[in-house]
Amino acid sequence: MHYRLALIGFGGVARALVEILRNKGNELPQKDGLELSVVAVSDLRLGMAEDPDGLDLAALVDLPNEPGALAAFSGGRAEPDNEAVIKRSTADIVVEATFTNPETGEPALSHCRWALESGKHLVTSNKGPVALAAAELTKKAEAKGLAFSYEGTVMSGTPVIRTAEQCLAGCHIAGFRGILNGTANFVLGQVETGMSFDDAIALAQSRGYAEADPTADIGGSDVLMKVLILARALFDQAVEASAVPCQGITGLSEAEVRAAKAEGHRWKLLGQGSVAPDGHVALEVAPIMLPDSDPLASIEGPTNALTLDTDLLGPVTVSGPGAGRIETGFALLADILAIHAQSQPPRYRQ
Amino acid sequence: MHYRLALIGFGGVARALVEILRNKGNELPQKDGLELSVVAVSDLRLGMAEDPDGLDLAALVDLPNEPGALAAFSGGRAEPDNEAVIKRSTADIVVEATFTNPETGEPALSHCRWALESGKHLVTSNKGPVALAAAELTKKAEAKGLAFSYEGTVMSGTPVIRTAEQCLAGCHIAGFRGILNGTANFVLGQVETGMSFDDAIALAQSRGYAEADPTADIGGSDVLMKVLILARALFDQAVEASAVPCQGITGLSEAEVRAAKAEGHRWKLLGQGSVAPDGHVALEVAPIMLPDSDPLASIEGPTNALTLDTDLLGPVTVSGPGAGRIETGFALLADILAIHAQSQPPRYRQ
Repeated sequence: MHYRLALIGFGGVARALVEILRNKGNELPQKDGLELSVVAVSDLRLGMAEDPDGLDLAALVDLPNEPGALAAFSGGRAEPDNEAVIKRSTADIVVEATFTNPETGEPALSHCRWALESGKHLVTSNKGPVALAAAELTKKAEAKGLAFSYEGTVMSGTPVIRTAEQCLAGCHIAGFRGILNGTANFVLGQVETGMSFDDAIALAQSRGYAEADPTADIGGSDVLMKVLILARALFDQAVEASAVPCQGITGLSEAEVRAAKAEGHRWKLLGQGSVAPDGHVALEVAPIMLPDSDPLASIEGPTNALTLDTDLLGPVTVSGPGAGRIETGFALLADILAIHAQSQPPRYRQ
Repeated sequence: MHYRLALIGFGGVARALVEILRNKGNELPQKDGLELSVVAVSDLRLGMAEDPDGLDLAALVDLPNEPGALAAFSGGRAEPDNEAVIKRSTADIVVEATFTNPETGEPALSHCRWALESGKHLVTSNKGPVALAAAELTKKAEAKGLAFSYEGTVMSGTPVIRTAEQCLAGCHIAGFRGILNGTANFVLGQVETGMSFDDAIALAQSRGYAEADPTADIGGSDVLMKVLILARALFDQAVEASAVPCQGITGLSEAEVRAAKAEGHRWKLLGQGSVAPDGHVALEVAPIMLPDSDPLASIEGPTNALTLDTDLLGPVTVSGPGAGRIETGFALLADILAIHAQSQPPRYRQ
């Protein structure tokens, strides 16, 4: 099976996907008769390039990060045209990985709508459109028999949505709680060992965990988006951001973080949610003091973890990286491979 | 889609599967057009019963645990006939959940062969046939386009094989290490807090974690079987049990377990494996002293956990229950639902 990809946004994550495709070119197809090519790339800064026969992956990986760089491709242009690429390209799958305004979800939300309206599968690592408009996009996808997948929006490449939907199918998931922001978790760990909040944030930035503006990481709004996405994926419910109590770690003092640690407790920034038997969903983002014996207490540094409360198994926890270029690029690949797996005749793998 | 099940062995796990089917009767079919019925049960002690229209699930759940009890069903008999039930029943799926001799895999191994040879999907929670003969059974299943699934053999209902094969498809898994025996883990935890090994084992037995004969739990041979199964599932390699160094926790002293804990370390019984680029697989079962910061160090009581070493994500860890009647019954259901999911037209869920 041959899938043609259109990449909308060609920052670190989309580049990582191309890098993985180039490096694993000989492995992926062998497995399942799968063939993947990139037929279009459009990026605000870099311009656009299209080739129905597939762009050269090595050339894309090595593309200089300079304005208009895609113009160097045969038929490439220095000016992007996301709308035209999404609507008119020969792609089967649109990979949406732009930057997004978290208030409006734009421009990613329009990209997502155009992709599904023009009959293309949609995979995205972009939290905005999923947190804000998953219900609408899911409906659009279902109406046309298309995929709308977003595994990478919660814990990057660490699988949580697919774990719940596929591996735990048959269980009822009544709640979740997780460490969903690696920067906040890293900072709390550093403060425990004696560093100031400001120095810990600076260290997180120097290691590439924290954004230049760490407000969303530290203030809880990044976790809030993820909690909204999980409410959608696990409970099939759309919740407004304004309905969710949201506190970051800025209200904690260094002294109380250290005192807790000394007494066998850990302060963690948690995203939590539960669904009552009547369907009522309660979500929250808040720092919580956990006893050392809690499985989430030992999650260190930028690692993320999510505990799912299930009826038949009790708590099941998945932990792994929660961010990263290659890690999130893999999440996009995982979404693409899942489309392929569902299009195949049964092979009765696990 | 309607699947007819034949249950071979009707101990706690198979009963739990029936209990889940009865309790979730109204939930599972709604989801996906799935219908499940139990058309045959055969058990060494309880006898056998067959009904192509489906046996009464509530009556099966309430079946007295007395020799020959299945004779009370219309057409039931006090004497089992596993071979006839497997070969001649109208079942689509054979659920193998008997007790097994770990040396020979029998009688479960014969049950497994008969199921596949007679064209029926096979799901099992039985470690023996998988650890000893997965290569042969996989080949038989593939040749006939049948499922051979065994998620419950490693960590009961906590998904690990399916996590690796489905959620992490596209990653290379180069190694694993895990806490794969809840009894041994519980015992070590109790010894850390001052109990003797003997008292801790007795407590594990009284709580239902340990078998009447705890030798396999404490001596490492239970973990050894799981490590062989993981080598098969993750590395596609058949390894002989005799080729795997295997040590249980009986060589540890109470003093050294407590001394390690006091110094910020934990003794854990680990099953480990890795595959080299040339395909060479190394497996081991041994008690290992972990620093407190290791994600496996904080796995408490009867909980199990498995860390997968991946090329694109680094370590990804799944933890949850590693045993239990309902938990393992769910694993069988998960295997059945996976057969169904693969037989469906694409729905492009995650």
